[in-house]
Amino acid sequence: MFRAMLWSILLTSLLVPGSALAQSKLSRAVATSDHMQPAIPRPEQDGEAARKLADFEARTGRKPNILIFIIDDMGWGDLGAYGGGEAIGAATPNIDQLAAEGLKLTSTYAQYTCTPTRAALNTGRLPVRTGLIRPILAGDNVTVNPWEGEVSLPKILSDHGYYTMLVGKWHVGEIEGMRPHDIGFDEFYGYYRAQKEYIQRFDEHRYGDLVLDKDKRDRYDSIGADDTLTYGLKDGTTQVVEKIISIKDMAEGDGKLRDYTVKRIGELAKGDKPFFIEHAFMKVHADDWPSEKFKGASASKYPYKDAVVEVDAYIGDIVRALDEAGELENTLIFVTSDNGPQLDSWPDSGYTPFRGAKGTTWEGGVRVPGVAYWKGMIKPGRVSDGLFDLMDLFNTSVHLAGGDEEIPTDRYIDGIDQTSFLLADDGQSKRENVYMWLGAQFTAMRMREYKIHTKVIMPDASNLWIDQATLNDVALAPWVFNLYVDPREQYAVGHRMNAWQASLGAEMKAHVATFRKYPPKDIGLGN
Amino acid sequence: MFRAMLWSILLTSLLVPGSALAQSKLSRAVATSDHMQPAIPRPEQDGEAARKLADFEARTGRKPNILIFIIDDMGWGDLGAYGGGEAIGAATPNIDQLAAEGLKLTSTYAQYTCTPTRAALNTGRLPVRTGLIRPILAGDNVTVNPWEGEVSLPKILSDHGYYTMLVGKWHVGEIEGMRPHDIGFDEFYGYYRAQKEYIQRFDEHRYGDLVLDKDKRDRYDSIGADDTLTYGLKDGTTQVVEKIISIKDMAEGDGKLRDYTVKRIGELAKGDKPFFIEHAFMKVHADDWPSEKFKGASASKYPYKDAVVEVDAYIGDIVRALDEAGELENTLIFVTSDNGPQLDSWPDSGYTPFRGAKGTTWEGGVRVPGVAYWKGMIKPGRVSDGLFDLMDLFNTSVHLAGGDEEIPTDRYIDGIDQTSFLLADDGQSKRENVYMWLGAQFTAMRMREYKIHTKVIMPDASNLWIDQATLNDVALAPWVFNLYVDPREQYAVGHRMNAWQASLGAEMKAHVATFRKYPPKDIGLGN
Repeated sequence: MFRAMLWSILLTSLLVPGSALAQSKLSRAVATSDHMQPAIPRPEQDGEAARKLADFEARTGRKPNILIFIIDDMGWGDLGAYGGGEAIGAATPNIDQLAAEGLKLTSTYAQYTCTPTRAALNTGRLPVRTGLIRPILAGDNVTVNPWEGEVSLPKILSDHGYYTMLVGKWHVGEIEGMRPHDIGFDEFYGYYRAQKEYIQRFDEHRYGDLVLDKDKRDRYDSIGADDTLTYGLKDGTTQVVEKIISIKDMAEGDGKLRDYTVKRIGELAKGDKPFFIEHAFMKVHADDWPSEKFKGASASKYPYKDAVVEVDAYIGDIVRALDEAGELENTLIFVTSDNGPQLDSWPDSGYTPFRGAKGTTWEGGVRVPGVAYWKGMIKPGRVSDGLFDLMDLFNTSVHLAGGDEEIPTDRYIDGIDQTSFLLADDGQSKRENVYMWLGAQFTAMRMREYKIHTKVIMPDASNLWIDQATLNDVALAPWVFNLYVDPREQYAVGHRMNAWQASLGAEMKAHVATFRKYPPKDIGLGN
Repeated sequence: MFRAMLWSILLTSLLVPGSALAQSKLSRAVATSDHMQPAIPRPEQDGEAARKLADFEARTGRKPNILIFIIDDMGWGDLGAYGGGEAIGAATPNIDQLAAEGLKLTSTYAQYTCTPTRAALNTGRLPVRTGLIRPILAGDNVTVNPWEGEVSLPKILSDHGYYTMLVGKWHVGEIEGMRPHDIGFDEFYGYYRAQKEYIQRFDEHRYGDLVLDKDKRDRYDSIGADDTLTYGLKDGTTQVVEKIISIKDMAEGDGKLRDYTVKRIGELAKGDKPFFIEHAFMKVHADDWPSEKFKGASASKYPYKDAVVEVDAYIGDIVRALDEAGELENTLIFVTSDNGPQLDSWPDSGYTPFRGAKGTTWEGGVRVPGVAYWKGMIKPGRVSDGLFDLMDLFNTSVHLAGGDEEIPTDRYIDGIDQTSFLLADDGQSKRENVYMWLGAQFTAMRMREYKIHTKVIMPDASNLWIDQATLNDVALAPWVFNLYVDPREQYAVGHRMNAWQASLGAEMKAHVATFRKYPPKDIGLGN
């Protein structure tokens, strides 16, 4: 059924005006093989970045560390550097400082929700190719292990001499074979699920219908969802560090994760391996409960806002730990979020100035903060609107590790190596398109400042909340927005520039065509 | 009629629940006299600022220069420092740098449209007190000169040893007695009206109905609206520098203003007087036509965006001129806009992430960028959401000039001296309330992070454009929004915190009560 749906989308897409399946003349990207996402050639900046990296290796005798911070459900607008921060009652001085002293990316894209983003980042592949098209929830019957046959980023890096570690939220499967330490991470210290799934088990006040009704609670418990802070090693060792038996256990979760990463950075710095750490916060995903120390720490005093302040403080702590361990100049740091804010939990929710929210392919759902910082390697004060897909962290990290030849050639890789975008002093993005999928449906694409929609999530009321919306085919012709003059996607301009609309359609078709040779994977998550 | 309307508002307002006419217990502000807006006492930071200023005077033997940049119709979101810039196709590196190296104010408020803001800034008084409640347009029959009896900021400063100059847009009256050099400025070099009023006279393509119809054009010309770049001196000297006879003349206007300010800064620096300059851009007010040099200078390539880049570049030029003249450390620089973006000219228009636009008292209409920079005097990297009303520039400038005793005591002054907010290293705002008037109607108020509306502009369609909206009384009870968790004013929370709603109502009433002793002025602009 899933595959049938995919091909029906393909056929629908073929009706979009435009020429055949080749890329359009609009595109600056050049295909170098049929299994790699075409990139914009930028030989000069590639050369500059290569020289910087060669100097780095000559100077340090090693490959760089990579530290990726993934904040859960933080909106593009939440950070001070992106127009939020103080203006909305939760200052973010630590992340703002990384942005000011590094590269602030204003067009970084995630997938429409959590699991797809994390899967894409760790495989360099769109969720529809791995089957991880939506979160796997306790009670879901996953028929195929999506990781079977996938080559993960931590696996490549681990094979290539890195120590790889996931600290925090995973949410890409909790059964054996799908756990972080099963799919390539040398070490895991964290939680398998989203914060709200733990919180909702105990929040009598907000979810009395679930928590105070013994029958429902017993049935929920019988699902056997994991409720632990877990420690795992690649050899299969798996230990329960703590069982989550109260809201407080979860409220203090990010503090424990911070402590762990700080401690391990100190230890890993003494070893002889470069390290790759994904520090994935549980916060600021609804429902937020403040840790004791951060209760009321924001000007706003709302739980979400206190969580923003807490996350920002921990990023500051961890960066300082890197500095104290002498690793700050050896480490590429990237700060981002896994999707736009979840607005149906308002006011316990984030902020985006854009249209839509988590669960949509409007900008509000997929455009996220993206801050790249590397002391001495990324020129301070850079800002770029060049396109960056979080999948690009796959290729970029592999390239930094010197492992390009480990990228599989028997499947389609959607990520692009953006090393030179990040490192060259005037680096430009090598990505021409960002493809936006809503589950198994290809709904929208960004190319340069244009965004084209063939299907749109429309609210049932004037406030766009993900659980009160419908997915609609657009009428007449695809909707094209110019995000520079219309960042909120309100006024479609496609009909005023038909040739461009057609070219954008051709680009969408060229993308769909990649599934002919490399069909999507169905793991039973349906759509 | 006007006065009747005002008092009917007052009476309506009295129906809002809350106690009598005193301020509410919610307020931290303390009244020190019945003609001055109550301010929040901050004696410690006042002391710190006073010491800084005393050191400055001891070091330089003089009072500081003041340079205020007013950009026309720029939205809060247009600047990179506020989440725009590169992200929306028009980088603003010069203003962003001032923000990064100075104080970025995230809650600066203007009036809902141009003339009221400029009048308020130059008098420290709400437009409803001076009668300048909306733009004076060619063809308007102004029955009373609103400046008669008003004491302007440039007059006080000029009397107090400053050289005062307005370069650029005035738009607060063009007949004798109302011109900048009539109301206190020592010198004027600029335009009496808004850019669009000149452009529309010549834009055959966009306004063919007006330009190509000889009868209409002749009738328009018979109004006798001023169409010149004018030079004027306090002694009454008034010269036409240039007659505007084409779009190009206006498109190059801001370049001429830039040249003039740069030249005069060099000259004034050689004199022995501190100077006060209002540099008021004609851009980025629709309709924008790029100057030859800046055509296509923005990533977006739209005229508005090119104008943003042009304005930003000129601010950079003028700041450099100050630096080269050795005056950078002697000058408080403030960058702002006179109101939110005008959206009915889209795509030739600005951007705000907030609800509403110019012409409304939603945040989108009145919340503007506010950047304060003073090398060596304002600590770099500060960000504050403290309330700042552009009227506060009146009191603050007078204080910096040492002229506090010149502030009139026979009328109500709405501005607050914010010197210590700007200068103390951890300065906090002394303003507790911002009152929002739509013409002669008191429609909304902000207090801390709360915003209360008693009347709201509602769009006729889903896109809020000022010319397609109606003004409505709110139903049930005033609408209260928490701007920290709801920056877009979407979800009223007042009914969930009735006591606060009542206190905010009491604050509104206390404001209206100031008009009992000091009635508003009616100059025939109606509402």
